[in-house]
Amino acid sequence: MKNIVIIGGGTGTFTLLSGLRKFPTNNSVIVSSADDGGSTGRLRKELDVFPPGDLRQCLLGLSYTEKETQDLFAYRFEKGELQGHTVGNIIIAALSKTLGGVESAIKQASKMLNVRGEVVPVTLFPTKLSATLNNGKTVVGEHNIDEPKIKSRPAIKSLQLSPSAPANKRVLRSLERADVIVLGPGDLFTSILPNLLVKGVSEAIAKSKAKKVLVVNLMTKKGQTDNFTAADFVNTVNKYLGKAKLDTVIINNKKPAVNILAKYKKEGAKLIAAEGVKKLKIKAIAKDLLSKNVFGKVNGDSLKRSYLRHDPDKLAKIIYEL
Amino acid sequence: MKNIVIIGGGTGTFTLLSGLRKFPTNNSVIVSSADDGGSTGRLRKELDVFPPGDLRQCLLGLSYTEKETQDLFAYRFEKGELQGHTVGNIIIAALSKTLGGVESAIKQASKMLNVRGEVVPVTLFPTKLSATLNNGKTVVGEHNIDEPKIKSRPAIKSLQLSPSAPANKRVLRSLERADVIVLGPGDLFTSILPNLLVKGVSEAIAKSKAKKVLVVNLMTKKGQTDNFTAADFVNTVNKYLGKAKLDTVIINNKKPAVNILAKYKKEGAKLIAAEGVKKLKIKAIAKDLLSKNVFGKVNGDSLKRSYLRHDPDKLAKIIYEL
Repeated sequence: MKNIVIIGGGTGTFTLLSGLRKFPTNNSVIVSSADDGGSTGRLRKELDVFPPGDLRQCLLGLSYTEKETQDLFAYRFEKGELQGHTVGNIIIAALSKTLGGVESAIKQASKMLNVRGEVVPVTLFPTKLSATLNNGKTVVGEHNIDEPKIKSRPAIKSLQLSPSAPANKRVLRSLERADVIVLGPGDLFTSILPNLLVKGVSEAIAKSKAKKVLVVNLMTKKGQTDNFTAADFVNTVNKYLGKAKLDTVIINNKKPAVNILAKYKKEGAKLIAAEGVKKLKIKAIAKDLLSKNVFGKVNGDSLKRSYLRHDPDKLAKIIYEL
Repeated sequence: MKNIVIIGGGTGTFTLLSGLRKFPTNNSVIVSSADDGGSTGRLRKELDVFPPGDLRQCLLGLSYTEKETQDLFAYRFEKGELQGHTVGNIIIAALSKTLGGVESAIKQASKMLNVRGEVVPVTLFPTKLSATLNNGKTVVGEHNIDEPKIKSRPAIKSLQLSPSAPANKRVLRSLERADVIVLGPGDLFTSILPNLLVKGVSEAIAKSKAKKVLVVNLMTKKGQTDNFTAADFVNTVNKYLGKAKLDTVIINNKKPAVNILAKYKKEGAKLIAAEGVKKLKIKAIAKDLLSKNVFGKVNGDSLKRSYLRHDPDKLAKIIYEL
C-alpha cells in the first residue's frame, strides 16, 4: 500500500483523489487554514471555525458512502439566505461547534461519509495569509490574494502567515510515513504554498524519503501566476520548500480547444507550457492530462471555478506508478 | 406491539416520543404542513420545501443513532446569517432538493438518524392555513395565527386550509393500523387541528377502531386558547373530528411553581384545569404530568418556546397502558 500525501485542498485535490480510487493507495490530504472566500469565508468569519470548504471537498474525495449522502454534502443552495453555502460546509461548521473543534468535526464527518484515508488541517491555530507584492504593498486575506480587486496587480513577491503557526502533529506524522508527497494541482499562492509556511512542514518534507512531486496547473491565474511557465512553478515551490527540493514535475502538454482558451484569455489566464523545465535538474513528465469534460460556474456559487481540469485517471496513474 | 399514531409534530410530540422509547410500541407521527414560522418558515419560503422543523423534531424523537449525529441535527446556529436555523432543518430541506421531494428526504434522514417508526407529512400538497376570528377578520399563515401581532386578539372561530388538500396515503394507512390515536400535546390551532382539515383524515379516524386520545396542553396560549378549560379542548377537537369522537382525555392536575406561572401570566397564559371534563361523556385521566425540568428560550431561536413540558415517562406510561 503506497502512502500518498497530497498538499492542496481544493478542486484539484478532489480530482486527484477521484483518480486514486482505482489504485491501492492510502491517502492523506493536508489542507490549508487560509481559505476565507465564498461560503467558507462567511462561515469562518461568522462562526469562528476552521474554513470548511476544502475539508468538505477532500472528505468527499475520500468518501465511500452511498451517493445520497455524498450528494447531500455536496449540495449548494441556489437561493435565499443560504445561497452559496454547501450542506457539507454547514455540517462541518456545526460539528466543530457541537464537538468542540475541527479535528473532532473531521472525525465525525469522516464517519458519516465512510472516509478511507485522512484529511488533516495543516495547523490548528488561527492565522491569516498575506502577500507582499512587487510594488511593496501588502494584500491581506486569502480571498483578496485569490481574486485581485484591481485590473492589473503587480506580481506576488512573498507570502506570510501572521501570526506564525506550528504544524498539526498529525501532518508531521503523515509526512514521515509518506512514499509520495504531491503538491497540487491547485492555486499556487492560496492553496499550496500557505501549507509550506506553517512551522515544521517544509522541514518534515526535507526529512522525508518520499518522492516529492509537483503537479503543475493547467492554466495560469490572474494576479497569482501571470505568465508563469512550468519552470516558474517548480522554482517558486522549491523556494518555499527551503531545504527540501522537488524531484518530479508533472505537466500537461495537450492544448485545449480554442474556444475554451478564449474564455480563459478574457479572465487573463494562459495555458502553461512545459518550456524551461528541461533546463532544471528534475524529472519532468509531460503528457496529455486534460479532462475531456468542460466545467464552469455552479449555480449559487459566488466563486470562480475552473473550466478545465486534469483527467483524474491519467493523473492518478502517473502518480501511482512513480 | 402497540401501533400508536401521534398527531401533532412540535416539542410536545418530541416529549411524548422520548417517553415512548421505554415501551414496546410502533410509533407513527403525522405532521402538519402548515408551519411557516422561524427557521422552518424561512426555509419553506425561500426554497419552496415542506416545512422541515416538525419533521426534524419527530425524526429525532424516533432516532436510535449515536449522540453525535442527533446533536448535529438538533444544533441551532446562534449567530451570523445562519442564526436560528438548525442543521437538521437545513439537511431535510437540502435532501428535499437533491432527492426531489419530502418523502424521499424523510426516508434518507430516517436512515441517517436510525429512525424506528415513521414520520408522515399529512399531505404532500402545498396549502396555507388561515383562521377566521370572532370579529369576522381572517388571519393568514400559521406563524401569524401562532403569535398574534395585536395585543388582544378576538378568539378563533374557525380554521381553513386553502387550497384544500387530500391526505397523504401513508397517513390513511397508519390510521387504519392504529391501536391508539393520540392528539397533542401541542398548539391546538396550529399543530393539531390543521391535520384534521386535510381531506380524508377525520374520516379515517372515524373508521378506525383505535382509542382516540387527547393530551390537553399544560397552559393556555394567548390568541389561540385564551381561557380554555380542558373541556373546551375536548369540544374543539371533537368539532374538527366530525363523525369521530375522542374517547379519552389526559390532563395534568399538578400546579406549577408560582414564579413560573408568573412568567406565563406576563405572556397572557394560564394553567389549564381539569374542570368541566366530568360533565362530558369521556374517560378523563387527571394526574401529575408535569416535568420537573423548566425549559426556556434557546440561543439563536426567534420563536417562543414553552417553559413547562409534560414529563415524558409519566405521559408515555398512561398512553401505553390505555
